[in-house]
Amino acid sequence: MNIGIIGGGSTGLLLSTYLSRQHSVTIYVRKEDQRIKLMKDGVRLSNYPGRAYIRALLSEDLQDEDCVIICVKQVSISAIIPLLRKIRKNTPLIFLQNGMGHLDDIKELYHPIILGVIEHGAMKLEDNLVAHTGKGKINLAAYQGDEAYLHSLSKKLNHSDFPFDFKENYLRLLKEKLVINAVINPLTALFQVTNGEVMRNRYLHNMAQIICEEACAVLEMDYATRWARVEYICENTAKNRSSMFKDIMDSRKTEIEAISGYIIKKGNGFTIPYTRFLYDSMKAIEIKKGITD
Amino acid sequence: MNIGIIGGGSTGLLLSTYLSRQHSVTIYVRKEDQRIKLMKDGVRLSNYPGRAYIRALLSEDLQDEDCVIICVKQVSISAIIPLLRKIRKNTPLIFLQNGMGHLDDIKELYHPIILGVIEHGAMKLEDNLVAHTGKGKINLAAYQGDEAYLHSLSKKLNHSDFPFDFKENYLRLLKEKLVINAVINPLTALFQVTNGEVMRNRYLHNMAQIICEEACAVLEMDYATRWARVEYICENTAKNRSSMFKDIMDSRKTEIEAISGYIIKKGNGFTIPYTRFLYDSMKAIEIKKGITD
Repeated sequence: MNIGIIGGGSTGLLLSTYLSRQHSVTIYVRKEDQRIKLMKDGVRLSNYPGRAYIRALLSEDLQDEDCVIICVKQVSISAIIPLLRKIRKNTPLIFLQNGMGHLDDIKELYHPIILGVIEHGAMKLEDNLVAHTGKGKINLAAYQGDEAYLHSLSKKLNHSDFPFDFKENYLRLLKEKLVINAVINPLTALFQVTNGEVMRNRYLHNMAQIICEEACAVLEMDYATRWARVEYICENTAKNRSSMFKDIMDSRKTEIEAISGYIIKKGNGFTIPYTRFLYDSMKAIEIKKGITD
Repeated sequence: MNIGIIGGGSTGLLLSTYLSRQHSVTIYVRKEDQRIKLMKDGVRLSNYPGRAYIRALLSEDLQDEDCVIICVKQVSISAIIPLLRKIRKNTPLIFLQNGMGHLDDIKELYHPIILGVIEHGAMKLEDNLVAHTGKGKINLAAYQGDEAYLHSLSKKLNHSDFPFDFKENYLRLLKEKLVINAVINPLTALFQVTNGEVMRNRYLHNMAQIICEEACAVLEMDYATRWARVEYICENTAKNRSSMFKDIMDSRKTEIEAISGYIIKKGNGFTIPYTRFLYDSMKAIEIKKGITD
C-alpha cells in the first residue's frame, strides 16, 4: 500500500521505519529541516542496523494515499484537520492520539476512520532516528465507515515484527488507554520519575491507585482490571519516561487537556480531587515554564 | 540576660546576631566544625557590617541559662528533649518550631514554656553567616508557667530592631502559622517556586485556596481572614524560598509530618484531598531523593 504518515515525532518515525518494510511510505512533517534530513539520510532505528529510505514531504503538501496514519500529538490535531479535509473522501484515516479529546475534532471528517492506541515505547533521538524502547502492538478499532473493510486494512498493516490488532469497540479501546495515561503521565511528569518508579515508590503507588479509581469511576470501567493493567504497563516499561514527563523536560505543551482534562469535563459531579490536582499541576508547570497554547 | 540558643540553622544564627546586641548569647550547635567557626569568627548578617562574637558550645554541653530558645527544626525536637530535661526546672524555654507536632514532645517538660512563631525570612549562607531576607517579628505566647513572668521575659527580648510580641492564646498563634505553612510550604516545594509565584500562577493560586480551605476546616479557623494572611505573606516574601522548598533542594528531610501530617491526623473524617496529595507528594519526593528518617 501507499501509506502516508503525518508527524515526524517518535510515533511517526517508528511507524515509518517498520511499515516501510512492506509498504511504500511517505512521511509528512512540519519542518523543512527534518524533511530534508529524512529524504537525504532515510529513517533509522537505534540498536538496529540499516536505514529505511522513504519519501518525506511537508504536511501541507499532503497527497492522496491508500491510507493515512495521523501520528501528531493530540494538541496538534486541530491544525491537521483542514489538510485531511482536502484528501479523497474514501481514504481511510487512522488516528493514534492519546486521550479522547480528538473525538470532537474528527467529527467533521467524512472519511472511513480507525482509532488506535499504541503500546510501544519510542523515543525520538534525532530528526531521523528513533529508539524503540518498548515492544508492544498497536490496537485499532473502527470509528466510522465499513467495519469489514477497515478490519481488512488493519490486517494488511499487521506484521509479526510490528503487530496491529483489530478490536470491536473503539470507545472501550480509547477509555482503557485513557485510564493508563491519566494515571501514569501526569504523575511521572510531576515527580519526574520513570514509569517503574510509580510502582516502587509507595507514596506514588498510593496516589496512582486513587487516580485510577477516579478515572474508572468517571469512565465506568472496572477498577481491578484497569489497575492490573496500569501495574503491568509500569513494570513492562519500568525504565521509560512517559510522553508527558518528556514534554515537561523539553518545555513542550503537555496533553493534560486531552487526558485529565477530558476526565474532569466528563466527570462533572464526580469527586475526583487527585485528577483535578494533577490537572492544575500540569497547567501550573506549563505557566511556570512559559509554555503557552 | 544569659540566653542560650539551641540550633545553628538560619533561625538560630539570626537570633544569635540580634539578641547578642543586648544580651549575652551562647549558641549551641550539633557539629564541632560549626562551633569552632562561630567561636573563631563570630556570627554575621549579610548586608550588615560587623560581626557578633558569641560563645558557641555543642548542644550536648547545654548549661544553665536565664532563658533557652530552641531553634532546631521540628524534626529534631525529640533529640533535644533529653538535654532540656537536664537543665534547671525554672529555666524558661522558648520553642520556635513550625507546625504543632512538637506539642506532643514537650509535654514531659516541667519548665516554664513559651511557644513562638517567626515571621522573619532568613537564609543560612555559611556556618556563621545568615541573610535576613525578610524583616518581621517573633510572636510569643505562654504555654505553661506563670503568664505574667513569661510576658515580662518577652518584653526583655523585645527590641525595635528585632521585635518580640506577646499574644494571649498559644493555640491560636500556632494554628494561624500552621495554616500559612500548610499552604505555602508543600506547594512551593513541590513546584519549586518562590512564595510570590503562588499568587502569580493562577493554577497554584487556585490550589492554594483549596488547601487553605481544607486547613481552616480542620483547625476551625475563619477562611477569609486566613486566606488574606496567606496572600499577605506570599506578597511580602515574594522572592523568598520557603523552608520546605529549601529542604527539598538540599535533599533534607522536610517538616511535612509536623505541618500537613498534623492536619491529616487532626482532620480524621474531614475531606482534605489536596492536603493529602501534598503530604503524599513530599513523602514521595523524600523517598525519590533517598531521604530517610
